[in-house]
Amino acid sequence: MGNPVLVEAVRGRRLESSHCGAVAVVDGDGRAVLSLGDIDRPVYPRSAVKALQALPLIETGAADRYAFADEELALACASHGGEPAHIATAERMLTQAGLAPTSLACGPHWPLHQPAAQALARAGGMPLALHNNCSGKHAGFLCVACTMGMDKQTYTDPAHPVQRGVKAVLESLMGVPLDDDNRAVDGCSVPTWAVPLWALALAFARFGSGLGMLPVRAAAASRLRQACANRPWHVAGTGRFCTIAMERLGERVFVKTGAEGMFCAALPEQGLGLAVKCDDGAGRAAEVAMAALIARFAALDDADRSHLDRFVRPSLRNWNGIVVGELRPTPTLL
Amino acid sequence: MGNPVLVEAVRGRRLESSHCGAVAVVDGDGRAVLSLGDIDRPVYPRSAVKALQALPLIETGAADRYAFADEELALACASHGGEPAHIATAERMLTQAGLAPTSLACGPHWPLHQPAAQALARAGGMPLALHNNCSGKHAGFLCVACTMGMDKQTYTDPAHPVQRGVKAVLESLMGVPLDDDNRAVDGCSVPTWAVPLWALALAFARFGSGLGMLPVRAAAASRLRQACANRPWHVAGTGRFCTIAMERLGERVFVKTGAEGMFCAALPEQGLGLAVKCDDGAGRAAEVAMAALIARFAALDDADRSHLDRFVRPSLRNWNGIVVGELRPTPTLL
Repeated sequence: MGNPVLVEAVRGRRLESSHCGAVAVVDGDGRAVLSLGDIDRPVYPRSAVKALQALPLIETGAADRYAFADEELALACASHGGEPAHIATAERMLTQAGLAPTSLACGPHWPLHQPAAQALARAGGMPLALHNNCSGKHAGFLCVACTMGMDKQTYTDPAHPVQRGVKAVLESLMGVPLDDDNRAVDGCSVPTWAVPLWALALAFARFGSGLGMLPVRAAAASRLRQACANRPWHVAGTGRFCTIAMERLGERVFVKTGAEGMFCAALPEQGLGLAVKCDDGAGRAAEVAMAALIARFAALDDADRSHLDRFVRPSLRNWNGIVVGELRPTPTLL
Repeated sequence: MGNPVLVEAVRGRRLESSHCGAVAVVDGDGRAVLSLGDIDRPVYPRSAVKALQALPLIETGAADRYAFADEELALACASHGGEPAHIATAERMLTQAGLAPTSLACGPHWPLHQPAAQALARAGGMPLALHNNCSGKHAGFLCVACTMGMDKQTYTDPAHPVQRGVKAVLESLMGVPLDDDNRAVDGCSVPTWAVPLWALALAFARFGSGLGMLPVRAAAASRLRQACANRPWHVAGTGRFCTIAMERLGERVFVKTGAEGMFCAALPEQGLGLAVKCDDGAGRAAEVAMAALIARFAALDDADRSHLDRFVRPSLRNWNGIVVGELRPTPTLL
């Protein structure tokens, strides 16, 4: 018995494609509020947990040592578009710690934001590790390593104390041990551990509410959420769902995408954590599903709802700008 | 009961994502050789039928009138990468018919081939309709309109005689009527009709074998297949599966991708037509499935097989070039 269809792609009058997946929505005590599909199967959270990976940046004192403001903290939680101000913020984080951009071990890629990529090409540039959507997270890891006097070359290694610290934070928030048999290498070379979807939802319920966390960790989580609410553009970028949802809803939501159809969110007012995994890894579908879940579980007014509707039911346009269809959540999400 | 899993994405030691879909393999008499999943549900073939849409270019005499060689015919069947020689070929087709590039109604987009897109940006350029992966097909439509004295402004309209002619060709090869309730607008604004997957496979069995076709149409199909076998780079481009498969196997295969997880192929030696639709619209999975089917049904020697293996089981590398996993066909395809 497979997972249910979460999102459909319609063209003309017919279904063209469909996306199955699983959804877990839980409260801070781990009680299920919504469970669709198999939420026990381990899934790689990928970049959806960057905000959890950034907790040691605050807990170790590195963020204070380097006088990071909301921009830097938000960028540490980001899958950014590589727009100029993203790059400048990542560079500033490294400079504060006395490091060069070449310290980043995330690998180079062209900016995800297409106009930024085109501008870089037009200027005769080539992509650097700074343009990698993970450069803020990596700068944060390096700042932790510098603050704690750890080796700065091997910080992506699972055995490095930076990654061991991240692992301990993830285990404490998810309430499950991270098994090395479930460990893989993420796109930016740091470890990613497969965990049940319900454990991810629980971690975000805790991240949003502070429930079940040490006070110092709850304070760090609150500071990261505030930073992202204040600087949502630094968490993703121009036109992106994570940015626009947090711009609109402020601290009422923390929401973060991950590769291969992952999406996680916290709704602090409701005390809920949300996690979505599309079976096929489709980001377009995970985004629609998460937008529908936020519209369902956050207390949105009509203006909020209509502001976010373009992400719940995005039109599909062709190269001439003609609307040829749409993506839509299935009734099971509504 | 859903369609079976055709392709899996593995990261580390675990399944990360999976792609369901349907497969039809039939001979020229429509006998099923392999049937996986629901092959009766209508699916939009999108660009996978460009070679069939190009048959009128030959049948109307337009290709001869404008002295088209293999390059032009292959480009009419192409979803090209927008590399410089693709653009030059599309421009030449239009020039032969006395038309300007502004006649193209496919809409502009950045070249699919990333180095070509970067070079265009570096040169300060902006994408034109010529860069659209469909510009060869559209140039072909315009050449038919010119040859037949039809209106050249409205050639993408379903009521235009060019599209009515394409519809008649598709109906004759697929053996099913194209219902206007199943008509939608394609990415390049021409009509696309949803048809059962078995009918697509049948059309390609006929396209490859000439069975069940008028002699003039069988000759046109043979000429298009030869052109694509002689100029496979013009059908897709540098590094692309369609190109590399036809470079390697020559006239032993015609294979063509389409948007939203479509793939069609003809194996003339075996008299088979193949059609794949991934439910979720994932091109990466449709390509793996088609590569596995070609390896299964074409009579490949070990050298052919090892040449194409990178498409059957492609490695997944991260931004540092580290192999982090792979895509693989499920045993049902092997």
